[in-house]
Parts: sequence; structure tokens; C-alpha cells
Amino acid sequence: MTLNLPFKQIDVFTATPFKGNPVAVVNCMDVEESDVTTEQLQSVANWTNLSETTFLFKPTLKECDYKLRIFTPANELPFAGHPTVGSCRAYLQFKNIKNATAIKQECGVGIVDLSVEGDKISFVAARADVEEVSDSLVESYKTAIGVPYVNRPSLMQTGPAWFVYLVDDADTCLNLNLNLANLKQVCDAAQHSGVILAGPRKSAEGIEYEMRALFTVPDTSFEDPVCGSGAVALLRYLQTIHNYDETVNVHITQGRRVHRNGHINGCIKVDPSNGAVSYHVGGSSVAVINGEITL
Amino acid sequence: MTLNLPFKQIDVFTATPFKGNPVAVVNCMDVEESDVTTEQLQSVANWTNLSETTFLFKPTLKECDYKLRIFTPANELPFAGHPTVGSCRAYLQFKNIKNATAIKQECGVGIVDLSVEGDKISFVAARADVEEVSDSLVESYKTAIGVPYVNRPSLMQTGPAWFVYLVDDADTCLNLNLNLANLKQVCDAAQHSGVILAGPRKSAEGIEYEMRALFTVPDTSFEDPVCGSGAVALLRYLQTIHNYDETVNVHITQGRRVHRNGHINGCIKVDPSNGAVSYHVGGSSVAVINGEITL
Repeated sequence: MTLNLPFKQIDVFTATPFKGNPVAVVNCMDVEESDVTTEQLQSVANWTNLSETTFLFKPTLKECDYKLRIFTPANELPFAGHPTVGSCRAYLQFKNIKNATAIKQECGVGIVDLSVEGDKISFVAARADVEEVSDSLVESYKTAIGVPYVNRPSLMQTGPAWFVYLVDDADTCLNLNLNLANLKQVCDAAQHSGVILAGPRKSAEGIEYEMRALFTVPDTSFEDPVCGSGAVALLRYLQTIHNYDETVNVHITQGRRVHRNGHINGCIKVDPSNGAVSYHVGGSSVAVINGEITL
Repeated sequence: MTLNLPFKQIDVFTATPFKGNPVAVVNCMDVEESDVTTEQLQSVANWTNLSETTFLFKPTLKECDYKLRIFTPANELPFAGHPTVGSCRAYLQFKNIKNATAIKQECGVGIVDLSVEGDKISFVAARADVEEVSDSLVESYKTAIGVPYVNRPSLMQTGPAWFVYLVDDADTCLNLNLNLANLKQVCDAAQHSGVILAGPRKSAEGIEYEMRALFTVPDTSFEDPVCGSGAVALLRYLQTIHNYDETVNVHITQGRRVHRNGHINGCIKVDPSNGAVSYHVGGSSVAVINGEITL
């Protein structure tokens, strides 16, 4: 059966088309999930060649607004950051919803809470766990990266396993010429998803970091333009260093090495009643392609 | 100025969606070329993440049907194979042309002649030049590829510079596990675009080859799903071996190692009046995404 389904390609973490990270979103809310096979969804995602393609379905949990299935060209993911922000934007537009402030997304990790404020959508990280790494692994990364770290790096389990490596400042981060093949060897041996490089930028407006995400996948590695789970990893890492006891906002810029100019609004939120910490990542997004896809 | 332009993503060298090679096509025929900048077009192509994104403009040469500009994520190309087939398909659909048999495309290499027959569109190669390579380079490729060649390989200048390497049979071609990083080193040192691997398949219906295209680009290399200029290179190479004095059809299958199933109709056409040889490459194509893009 041929299905013609509503389609959008959303640019995420930017208000300016082509400056953020794209995600392809297929609206399957008017069909049943059983009308399509996982193989079919995977073949769409393999073909778009985007880091992620998502499919909106009717939720199976009654408290949720939609169910999201997320695919890379190679496999299905339980969660991903920029696809979540972009898919929520697409959902609001497909359904012509203009006044939402809170959205619940059903996906592989369970329920993800999203908040909508003007043109910005943020999600609360479902997972942000710190994992220690050995001294020898830290040294291997240091050799592959080629500049010293300013705090002992460690691994953040955010869905993807990001090795977070802080350098002196934003310019050092931006100017670093990385050998992706060397870096991939270290990541592969350690079974890490990739490396988050970040350096602080002096700003009168608060805490600001330049970030880069080096993502390894089977056969290759690439620099991800603007990375939601990477931002979660950076926020979680900053909390291990600073141990904030009050909520702080962290503005993250990313993508200038790959012709983008992404802006991520990060927030380390401390609940004053019990000290519980949550990690919030969001930003603007804009629909660039609007149409239909034939499955 | 925001421009909303008609957009299609066409799957090329297949009649089945998601089994060919995609190209994104933007219809700029109702605006002036001066309404957009090269930078803008490049930023679209950088963002789609497809091997090529194309832009249809009004032709400047009166004998042509349209002018095509072709961009990879990194730069503009004078010509490319599957984008030409896919862009012609998009042109016919945008203009609702149903009875065309011949189309002239204006592009960086000049005028490219296309023929339309049912759902198939073919182009005549504007360039297919043979270039000899040194013995030591052949040996470097052999080491990187890891299986023997059946005829001395050589370089085909088709726009991209393809090193064509024939192996025993279709299965050998399909089953070969390539180390793309090693292969990229040899290609980079020789300033070649990549490697075309091909092996013949026994077929009652004529000449048939399984083909694979290993494309190197700055920072990485990838296996191209179904490759038009690669098919030109293979046809030209076969002509150096067999020196056909009559027209032959060559059916090329490609993409099964990267979840596709492409079919290319190749033809080495010998003009009986003067023996002149031309190389024709075509196949089916299908519009998978139809809509608008905001520039």
C-alpha cells in the first residue's frame, strides 16, 4: 500500500534556516503504527541521509501528546535531543497548536517532558549519568585531541555515551583541527559514541560555551552541527565541576566549523525544595521543507 | 527576502522509493538567478546532507529547457550524473510535461542531452577520457582493495576522476569488505575522486555488472549508493578493453551493500556511419518528497 504522509524538515537550534541541525519528520498520526513496518521506517531514514529521521504516531500512553520513533540511517534510537525539539515543533505545526506550554513525548526512554515558550522548545534530559574512565584512556584521548584539558574529562551517559573534554576557551575549541580518524579509533576501542569538546567564552550575559560534537558511527565519524544530547552531557559535566546549588543558565553555541551557527539554551535546574538537579536543553527551530512523502 | 520555492526529493536509478540515490531539487524557474546568491545555494546543499542538491533556473541558452546548478555539501559541480537524471524528472513534473522525448540541460560543462523514454531518462556523457596511471599506483590500489584485478585498472576522467578496478565477478565485488580509510589515503595521494569496483554477472539478458563506488571527500569517504558518473567511467573502461564496434547495452546494478537496489541502464553507442562512440547512462526515477522549501 502506498502511503502519502505529511512531511517536514525542521532546522533545530536556530531561528535562521540552514544554520541549525536538520531533522526529517513524518506525520503518521492519521495512520496506525501497524500500517508501517520498522523496516520501512528504517529505509526512509537510511535514504534521507540525515543524522535522524523521526515518525510521529498517536500516543499509546494517554497522558502523552504523541509517540515518537527516532531512526539514524543505521538503527532506531530510544531518544535523541535535536530530533525531539524538531519533532515537537513539527507536531505543533501539523496540528496547528498555537498555545501549548507543556508537551509530553512518548518514546523509547519513556515519557520526555517538553516545555514551549515562544519559538523555543526545551526537553528535560531523561538520562545524564557520570561514568569514570581510566587514566590511560584519558591520556589516549588527550593524544588524539592534541590540546590539554582544563579539568579531568569523564564520560556522560546521556543515551549516547559522550566523552566530555573541556579546553581553555571558546577560541581553542573552535580553532582545533581534529583528526577524526584518530579520534574514532579511541572512541571505538572505548565503545564511546563520541567526544564533546567545549571551551568557555567570556560573556557579560552569563555562562557561555562554544561546543563541538565529534560523533563516531560504523565506518566513519563526523562533526555533528548542533547536538542536543551533547549539550546534556556538557551541562552534566559542568555540574560535576561546579556543583551548583542554584539554577544556572548555560548558553551554548555550536556548528561554526561546519557552516552552521546553532544556539542551545541549556539550564541546570536546582529544585530549591529538595536540591534535585535536572538538565534542560532547548532552543528555536524552524520548518524549512513542508510537503508530503510517499512511503 | 524570504523565498518559498517548489521542492522535490527524487530517488534516482530506481522505480521503488528509497532504493535509489536521492537528490534534492529546488525549482527556481519562477525567480531570477540574481534573486539568490551562490552562498545561499551552497548553504542549502550543506544542510540537506545529500551527496547533491540542485537548482533549476530559466535557461540562458535559448536551445535549452532549463539551466541546472549542482552543489555537494562542500562545493558547486559543473556536472553530476544521478542529479542530472533526478533534476530532469523534477523539471518534467514541475512543468507537468508528459510527452517530452528530448531535453537539453544547460550546466557547468555546457549542454547535456537527455532522452526520455517512458519512466526512464538518460544523459549522454559530456566527458569520458582515459588517463594512464603508474604501475606503483596500481599496486597501491591493489593493496588497499585487497583482491586482484582482472584487467589492468586505469583512471577515467568523467568530471569526477574515477579509478576503475574490475574484479572476477559480481559476487566478489559485492562481498568485498573495504577499508575506506586505507582507500581514501591512496585516492587522496593520487588526487582521484574515488574508486569504481565492478564485476560481471552471468545473465541471459546481455551484459550485466555489479558496481560499487567509493567516493572520497574532504575529511571522509563513503560508499555512493548508485552513481551516474561512475557508470560512465565503467562504460568507458569496458570500451578500452572490448573496443566494441557495435552498440551494446550494459545493465549495471548497484547499492546492495548500502541498503539500496539501484538499476542503471548503460549504453556504449557506436555510430555506424563514422564509428564515433558515446556513453549513455540512465534509469528510472521517482519523486518521494514533494513540497516547498523556504530560502
